[in-house]
Amino acid sequence: MTLLFYSETDAPEPWRDAFARALPQLPFRVWPEPGADEAVRYALVWKPEPGLLSRLPNLKAIVSLGAGVDHILRDPQLPQGVPIIRLLDAGFAQQMAEYSAYAVLHFQHRMQEFLAQQSNADWRQLDPGLTRDWNVGVMGLGVIGGHIAQRLAALGFPVLGWSRSARRIDGIDSFHGDSGLQQFLPRARVVVNVLPLTPETEGILDARRFALMPRGAFVVNIGRGAHLIEQDLLDALDAGQLGGAMLDVFRKEPLPSDHPFWRHPKIVVTPHVAGVTIPSEAESQVIEIVKTLERGEMPPGVVDRSRGY
Amino acid sequence: MTLLFYSETDAPEPWRDAFARALPQLPFRVWPEPGADEAVRYALVWKPEPGLLSRLPNLKAIVSLGAGVDHILRDPQLPQGVPIIRLLDAGFAQQMAEYSAYAVLHFQHRMQEFLAQQSNADWRQLDPGLTRDWNVGVMGLGVIGGHIAQRLAALGFPVLGWSRSARRIDGIDSFHGDSGLQQFLPRARVVVNVLPLTPETEGILDARRFALMPRGAFVVNIGRGAHLIEQDLLDALDAGQLGGAMLDVFRKEPLPSDHPFWRHPKIVVTPHVAGVTIPSEAESQVIEIVKTLERGEMPPGVVDRSRGY
Repeated sequence: MTLLFYSETDAPEPWRDAFARALPQLPFRVWPEPGADEAVRYALVWKPEPGLLSRLPNLKAIVSLGAGVDHILRDPQLPQGVPIIRLLDAGFAQQMAEYSAYAVLHFQHRMQEFLAQQSNADWRQLDPGLTRDWNVGVMGLGVIGGHIAQRLAALGFPVLGWSRSARRIDGIDSFHGDSGLQQFLPRARVVVNVLPLTPETEGILDARRFALMPRGAFVVNIGRGAHLIEQDLLDALDAGQLGGAMLDVFRKEPLPSDHPFWRHPKIVVTPHVAGVTIPSEAESQVIEIVKTLERGEMPPGVVDRSRGY
Repeated sequence: MTLLFYSETDAPEPWRDAFARALPQLPFRVWPEPGADEAVRYALVWKPEPGLLSRLPNLKAIVSLGAGVDHILRDPQLPQGVPIIRLLDAGFAQQMAEYSAYAVLHFQHRMQEFLAQQSNADWRQLDPGLTRDWNVGVMGLGVIGGHIAQRLAALGFPVLGWSRSARRIDGIDSFHGDSGLQQFLPRARVVVNVLPLTPETEGILDARRFALMPRGAFVVNIGRGAHLIEQDLLDALDAGQLGGAMLDVFRKEPLPSDHPFWRHPKIVVTPHVAGVTIPSEAESQVIEIVKTLERGEMPPGVVDRSRGY
């Protein structure tokens, strides 16, 4: 039996070393090294090539190298019946909470305007916003969204949460479902999106939703690029309905160099770095998943394919 | 008896309204409105014109509109024996903690580099720093510095503190005095300065201190412009000894438009906004100070002129 590692963006060496230490009896094969596909029992993957997993007849489990699994579920030949396991938190929650705090403070403290002023050597004081007046709305209340919400609340921001199905988080005013979204958006001066990407959430950040937000509101997208209708964002920024956006994920990554987001004065672009899998943080979790599977048990993080996360 | 209000940057109206509500019997005179100088019992001031206070023979107390009093103590004709009272916190601590968190996250999350990349439509992922590896050193451990230190610690940063005389803050590794500074600086990957400006702290951010910091460290100055030797900062940035700086205060404000800080790619300039006195936050504190004085008692915040704060 073998573990197959597949990622075009994650270096395999730290993972190979970690598995050699923790599970020395489990051969570790890095795609595209040659090997017997029948021997592969576990696949540890990020954005696997479509069709790859279907060629592994004895696959017992697919483990995502991240919190999302949309990159696996989009494979039309994805083998049925094989459990998919996602990382519930491997340092992402802390990283993404920090990114969210940075983004909210960027808008609240008018850093967008100060950076623009600096490029013109323009000294102009602008009134700060009082933290208690800056309602932040977090879309997605799983492990990551819950952590983001609690960290923002600890900084003094009033925090609202929204998720597709009802969730309760201490100290967070929570909404759910379509009708909840109608109540949530008008109260959110900043929306931080960290929803999983599913058919129900694709395109959820669109003109209709922006129109429900308070005028001049801000959008932070650290979910997936496909949550956002890009032209709707540009239109809402240009019309003043939105005041700014900080975006870490895009429909096409890397973001093409001629994309208008790069040059828009009200958009900050970061290159999909808000929550990255750091091997030193994630490896113990992945090894625990494989050990649990080896014992014939199911680890936490098994994906419900019908929900998409 | 009268209260005299003096500030060239704070609007007097909210203060006049607050005093009219809380102490209607106390006339409120805004400089340069005419009036009897002998009647002035209290002066509420920000950067008072030198000599002004010495012309008020019956002054009982001088109240600063901010946390610092260097703007008052620099008056060579400052009347002796009149107590000076500073605001211990009027929302500054929260604001400055947020500014500090923003600045630390800016450097830790490599936003300086991502903003530069954005201007070239350059998509390049850079490794994030782990929060636990980012020691932040706070210089100044009064009400504001203590709050900054605790907020940064709550975000997960290991926080060190330094002050001239010994102070203890829960959860913060504290150093003091000249020898403490030698131990503190080599451990601080980011230094946040919020010291009071006194003869002992003027110019404390200089080449000698930058050389003690780890290579590539960052400086955040939200104390006073005169804490920093400006040319030493430029030299340390250009030599790579420092990696970046976020500066809110300057020797000359507004920062002259030909100043090299404006155009330096590793410096963020903000126009003295990190901690501003917001009347709605400060007025109850100032009114309580005046009421206490009216009862013949001394309020908290009386300045020790020999220390300078």
